[in-house]
Amino acid sequence: MSAPALFNESAARVMQQCDELGRITDEPGRLTRTFHSPAMQLANGLVGTWMRAAGLEVWDDAAFNLFGRWPSARGRARTLLLGSHLDTVRDAGKYDGPLGVLVALAALEHVKSQGLPLPFHVEVVGFSDEEGVRYQTTYLGSRALAGRLKKTDLALIQEKGIEKARRKASEFLAYAEVHIEQGPVLEARDLALGVVTAIASQARIRLAFSGVAGHAGTTPMALRRDALCGAAEFIVAVEKAPAGQTVATVGMMQVSPGASNVIPGRVELSLDVRDQSEARRGRLCAKLLKIAERLAAQRNLTLEWKIVQETPAVPCDKRLTQLMRQAVGRHEREVIALPSGAGHDGAEIAHLCPMTMLFVRCQGGISHNPAESVQTSDVAKSIAALADFIILLAAREQGAV
Amino acid sequence: MSAPALFNESAARVMQQCDELGRITDEPGRLTRTFHSPAMQLANGLVGTWMRAAGLEVWDDAAFNLFGRWPSARGRARTLLLGSHLDTVRDAGKYDGPLGVLVALAALEHVKSQGLPLPFHVEVVGFSDEEGVRYQTTYLGSRALAGRLKKTDLALIQEKGIEKARRKASEFLAYAEVHIEQGPVLEARDLALGVVTAIASQARIRLAFSGVAGHAGTTPMALRRDALCGAAEFIVAVEKAPAGQTVATVGMMQVSPGASNVIPGRVELSLDVRDQSEARRGRLCAKLLKIAERLAAQRNLTLEWKIVQETPAVPCDKRLTQLMRQAVGRHEREVIALPSGAGHDGAEIAHLCPMTMLFVRCQGGISHNPAESVQTSDVAKSIAALADFIILLAAREQGAV
Repeated sequence: MSAPALFNESAARVMQQCDELGRITDEPGRLTRTFHSPAMQLANGLVGTWMRAAGLEVWDDAAFNLFGRWPSARGRARTLLLGSHLDTVRDAGKYDGPLGVLVALAALEHVKSQGLPLPFHVEVVGFSDEEGVRYQTTYLGSRALAGRLKKTDLALIQEKGIEKARRKASEFLAYAEVHIEQGPVLEARDLALGVVTAIASQARIRLAFSGVAGHAGTTPMALRRDALCGAAEFIVAVEKAPAGQTVATVGMMQVSPGASNVIPGRVELSLDVRDQSEARRGRLCAKLLKIAERLAAQRNLTLEWKIVQETPAVPCDKRLTQLMRQAVGRHEREVIALPSGAGHDGAEIAHLCPMTMLFVRCQGGISHNPAESVQTSDVAKSIAALADFIILLAAREQGAV
Repeated sequence: MSAPALFNESAARVMQQCDELGRITDEPGRLTRTFHSPAMQLANGLVGTWMRAAGLEVWDDAAFNLFGRWPSARGRARTLLLGSHLDTVRDAGKYDGPLGVLVALAALEHVKSQGLPLPFHVEVVGFSDEEGVRYQTTYLGSRALAGRLKKTDLALIQEKGIEKARRKASEFLAYAEVHIEQGPVLEARDLALGVVTAIASQARIRLAFSGVAGHAGTTPMALRRDALCGAAEFIVAVEKAPAGQTVATVGMMQVSPGASNVIPGRVELSLDVRDQSEARRGRLCAKLLKIAERLAAQRNLTLEWKIVQETPAVPCDKRLTQLMRQAVGRHEREVIALPSGAGHDGAEIAHLCPMTMLFVRCQGGISHNPAESVQTSDVAKSIAALADFIILLAAREQGAV
């Protein structure tokens, strides 16, 4: 199915806007925009002009989040928050973040243009720090809004008073975020859109196998305590262990002493495990620890195992996600649900109000890379689906009140 | 069996000499002696005084090899060459090299003290460059003696005229070298000595698996082309593949991009394969290449495979080795034969005359490390066995002439 022509026009404009934003950078020659940097201030200013042109009230909050508001005529209305982030990683692509802000603005313009009075205010937000490049602390903007900043965050950053960006949960009806998938599932299924079920729980583990380094020419195979052979068996087991949508990855590896004629005496590895179910993620980690212990015992190696980070799963709101599925169903031959293995501002805003997310196919699943690429026709579908989501939510709220 | 008391006294003196030599270094705080360095000149000088004290004629040749000669009274006699090297790796142990020179000197003293007239001259040699630390080119001393220097070696080094150290094959009857094992086999078999069958053939290979880097959180297991999982399966196969005394080692590994949340897109590995049979070593390399190709094909990875170095096997002389077995049999409850996985000057001298080697147990198989350690009682056995070898060879030569 293809989107109606007017959505294609909007999508073409969104693509132009992404190009224009992609030239606003803190580093000449590559796209990098970090929390409250000169480029971020320019980016907020530019998107602010587009918001004003769409008839919205525009402001930056104390945490440097950009807002564009279309108020409802109804008294005591709550606010539907739509958006994503405007900051980037270093040497970024143009779509991770900005696409969600601009699709939200385009969808809202379509709803506005239909002249429907909405029973809620709508605010489009561009969050200021999803990637956490400047201070190595992600979600400063969305955590400020949700009142979830920690003292350690405030002590770390130069900017004062960002905690004043906090707003009350009672103000908000819902949050919906459009984001590129950053994975290859939609492309493999030949679909433009997918509805997110949850932001996955993640564990980051550092482990090490230690044996005995030795001469590669003079130590018979049977007398070796080769740390790398143990690590290799572990990596093979890690690849086989996950079932369903669980993922487990060894991404980093350090082999010591690291000479071609020396048997490795020590290998350090990273292990990253993610699942939308915390319990299932925990069971897999426990199973992999047992496998590592068994391999170490069999090979007379010592094992170190340290959990560096564990983040909980954040499920998307069921009722809201049902509305999003309905909206997507009008524009896709099939509605698929998938977990988000990456983190998003939605994980923080879920503590403020019900949250839903929509993924847009990106080429090869590539992101955090200048090669990041989306199709205009997919963007058109995402605008159409988000506009329908707003209208379905309005209908639900009309009925509910 | 233990060695007679007089060999124990000799061994204690050899251990003291190793300690004394171990303090002669180019780098304060650790033992390092490289080709023609100030410390090497001092070491030749010191060992030279010990040779003179034993009644030998002493000189350095044009390649800075140290010689101590005990001439035979017989006319037109050939020369039995005994020894090893006096240079070291960086941060070396005290025994790799020097032990073989000093055991040769001690064994010769025992033979001399018995007043037997030998039908051959004996020369004890301390080679000048086995480790190749100074110019990254091993065996400069023994290759000069054997006339096997290359023009590229001569172009590389500052010292002029080392090729004048060349001597004729017709001068030499045999070469015997005592060296620490640098491996754990003798310790595991509870034996002090082992007779070497051959210096192993070696292949050094650099290989790489390339797949697609991707987000560790968003790429389902089934859609990955993880270079590290392919490399891990290969390493497991490498460990299982060798039979008998063949060894195969992955010692070096580089995982790219090497971040905990990124699926590895490329892994580079080193592969070291050694066997005393060149044919068997070649067959194993071919088998491992096939395994790597199959794994790459199964996983949709690309494989690079480059042979960096191939050295031929150098078998020890059969008749000479039989004499060495006889000599060792007088001092050990069992005579075992083992290949040398490491290279030695003997590999070069084998091109000049028949060659045999005797290994002495070292603690934990550790070498190229300050922790290198040998037992005095094992050194006593090696002196006794080498003295017996000289006498057995003399008897054979008497009979032969």
